[in-house]
Amino acid sequence: MSIATTMIIRLEIRKSEASFGDVASGIAAAGGDIVAIDVIRAGKDVTTRDITVNVQDAGNEEVVNILSNMSGIKVINVSDSTFLAHIGGKIEITPKMRIKNREDLSQVYTPGVARVSMAIAHDPSKAYSLTMKRNTVAVVTDGTAVLGLGDIGPEAAMPVMEGKAMLFKQLAGIDAFPLCLNTKNADEIVNIVKAISPGFGGINLEDISSPRCFDIEQRLVAELDIPVFHDDQHGTAVVALAGLLNALKVVGKTIGNVRIVVVGIGAAGVSICNLLLAAGAQNISAVDREGILSREIHYDNAEWQKLAALTNPTGIVGGLQEAMLGADVFIGVSGGGILSVDHLKSMAPDNIVFAMANPSPEIEPDLAEPHVRVLATGRSDYPNQINNVLCFPGIFRGALDCRARTVNLEMKLAAARAIASVVLEDELNEQYIIPSIFNEKVVEHVRLAVIEAAIATDMARRIPPDIADREK
Amino acid sequence: MSIATTMIIRLEIRKSEASFGDVASGIAAAGGDIVAIDVIRAGKDVTTRDITVNVQDAGNEEVVNILSNMSGIKVINVSDSTFLAHIGGKIEITPKMRIKNREDLSQVYTPGVARVSMAIAHDPSKAYSLTMKRNTVAVVTDGTAVLGLGDIGPEAAMPVMEGKAMLFKQLAGIDAFPLCLNTKNADEIVNIVKAISPGFGGINLEDISSPRCFDIEQRLVAELDIPVFHDDQHGTAVVALAGLLNALKVVGKTIGNVRIVVVGIGAAGVSICNLLLAAGAQNISAVDREGILSREIHYDNAEWQKLAALTNPTGIVGGLQEAMLGADVFIGVSGGGILSVDHLKSMAPDNIVFAMANPSPEIEPDLAEPHVRVLATGRSDYPNQINNVLCFPGIFRGALDCRARTVNLEMKLAAARAIASVVLEDELNEQYIIPSIFNEKVVEHVRLAVIEAAIATDMARRIPPDIADREK
Repeated sequence: MSIATTMIIRLEIRKSEASFGDVASGIAAAGGDIVAIDVIRAGKDVTTRDITVNVQDAGNEEVVNILSNMSGIKVINVSDSTFLAHIGGKIEITPKMRIKNREDLSQVYTPGVARVSMAIAHDPSKAYSLTMKRNTVAVVTDGTAVLGLGDIGPEAAMPVMEGKAMLFKQLAGIDAFPLCLNTKNADEIVNIVKAISPGFGGINLEDISSPRCFDIEQRLVAELDIPVFHDDQHGTAVVALAGLLNALKVVGKTIGNVRIVVVGIGAAGVSICNLLLAAGAQNISAVDREGILSREIHYDNAEWQKLAALTNPTGIVGGLQEAMLGADVFIGVSGGGILSVDHLKSMAPDNIVFAMANPSPEIEPDLAEPHVRVLATGRSDYPNQINNVLCFPGIFRGALDCRARTVNLEMKLAAARAIASVVLEDELNEQYIIPSIFNEKVVEHVRLAVIEAAIATDMARRIPPDIADREK
Repeated sequence: MSIATTMIIRLEIRKSEASFGDVASGIAAAGGDIVAIDVIRAGKDVTTRDITVNVQDAGNEEVVNILSNMSGIKVINVSDSTFLAHIGGKIEITPKMRIKNREDLSQVYTPGVARVSMAIAHDPSKAYSLTMKRNTVAVVTDGTAVLGLGDIGPEAAMPVMEGKAMLFKQLAGIDAFPLCLNTKNADEIVNIVKAISPGFGGINLEDISSPRCFDIEQRLVAELDIPVFHDDQHGTAVVALAGLLNALKVVGKTIGNVRIVVVGIGAAGVSICNLLLAAGAQNISAVDREGILSREIHYDNAEWQKLAALTNPTGIVGGLQEAMLGADVFIGVSGGGILSVDHLKSMAPDNIVFAMANPSPEIEPDLAEPHVRVLATGRSDYPNQINNVLCFPGIFRGALDCRARTVNLEMKLAAARAIASVVLEDELNEQYIIPSIFNEKVVEHVRLAVIEAAIATDMARRIPPDIADREK
């Protein structure tokens, strides 16, 4: 498949040496298609223009090279459409009303606002009704595990967090604000999140590297009375479980009777194992570089130590190969290409493979398909995409609406079941075990399920009116 | 003047005991006017209604009292229009574009965003063009000195900070986000602001009590390369100086030749004295509870110690009364009612009095007027309101547009002169020394002056295109 990109090239053309005709010929020679021309500044000797060009595949470098080597032409800047979508950032802060006159001003600011502030000072829980708190989530990262890119720092994490904030608002109406922290110290991160928490109804931790992420999240959950949710752990786990529940239906197996191999016991892997256990899984082999976690071994990583005691009940010794032998389910959140066709062939019949490593899956989908009954990946260009976007908007919408104190295991399980339920029984098949992220039912299903689970486990501080009405 | 308020009363009416007619009569008897009725829930026995009522003056309590004492009526909630304007908060986070399909998603989020993140990882200064940083300001408070209310805590500070964010956007197009911190420890506040700074182009410190505010601001200014501006100090000082420059023109005096009394040497008072000195003032008496600051005395407060060496050149001994004798200018940022008519009578002819204490000025304007040539207050119901809103939107707009490293004294002076210049020479009179906060010229004048001062003092990292064009 050839991919067309749009790029905008800002050029200075020195009139005495080059003409726009030269530029146009150069672009055509490089395989580019001019779609628009804007004059930015027209000087006596030099004209500055923005040339919008469509190119196929990776032809953009060729276009720039040809232009750069022409005399009288200076390439000032090159942007493609992805970069252009980021200029100046992707989110903004918008007042809900315009201050038209002094009366408006004295209501939303001094002196009128003093009465509102005093009402909250007397009863801080009123912040939920009289400030933005009830609809606002902080998206907090230290930039140490951004996408598959690793420790790229807080500034470089911003575009990802802004994108996440866009999704929070568009899909769930939630006001999410990115806070990219210039510290990697776990104590400092915990203290900072605690300190900034008064204005927020929830905390979404994001792209914090493992194993620091476990400690940071657990301390914040213990010390704050608002939901704290590390999406890389639990978002992935919730969506993977949703997909697995439906995949098991397709193959006619049940979670309590299958042997599941989870590979890559980092942030997502740990949470996946815990959520599978909570959902009734009896036989998990948790595999990392050091092999199958085993209760015979002591691990410095506290999460591994805990998991070793809860998994591998038959005491299989070895690594990936030993774990895969006869397994019903493979769930990978590890690295690209670690899985071979032989591994797949060694699995039980009607096998389920979730190869979710990003950006390259554990095995190329085309290679895997002939040897797998149900295949899912993290990619959008194959069926069955396991994508966190299915989880975080709805789980926070539900948690905020019932003013949940936390997001507990029951709420995560409920979210997974709700996502699974969006695919109806008669729609379910090998190619369709998980809804699209654009399916509008997802957020509402997850929200309802999360609220009901929060109420049932006594974590809700408020019963939203629509739930109260349903229960009548 | 009688003030009409709108209130909304949520009532439960038990049908067997009371009718809506009873409610209507009760409200009328208390002097209220029903303007709307909404049925919230109609049950078999009980109906819940929202009754919108107009009342004169403080009649709202009477209305509520009468209803509360009626049998079969239960008052669930009472809101007035100020509270209603705050429900759910006053600002929101809005995506700049809608994600319509997978192609959009892959540009603003994974996988496309990875290229943008990597570009910033290689050159963090690109965060200015590729993220929201260049237009975003954190409004940071610890809730210790909110309005005239004192230490009311971070939750209660939220409505004020949200109101400030509204003004930032409406007046200067700046995306400001409130961070209300649950700590009063200066070291922690400094560390938190440093840690959250990567995503912000500037820091507006707000309502942090004195003298902690000086230390916190000075450390942040030294350690961050983005503008850090404590508005309670410098916003007030800039606007007071703007007013004073025009007032001196009205009375035909010059700043180098007048004796100025500044009373209340807290956050604002210290900055006012420093800015007056920078503007050429030669003779300031700085007065606090302990009397006129004097170089004969040692002060624990480092700012007082510094000011004592720079003020009171003639060594006046005493307090407010001694300071006022023969003074040309009084600038008060202290407490309500500390000034008497006798104080005013003891001043030099053509005296200037800025009684800016909030919410009650140092002397009632009606009482002061006969004895003052030019009078200004912090209040909106008298001429010449000295209001920070004249300063912070424009000063941050200018600082952001030229990517200033800091806001230095020269930029503050330039801002003050720019605000003063909005009132034209032929408009200037005793009743009009300072523009209205709704005057649209203010932000643009301040912005230009601040950018030019930043460039002149080598604090600008970018010359905005409009300034570059002007200078050609």
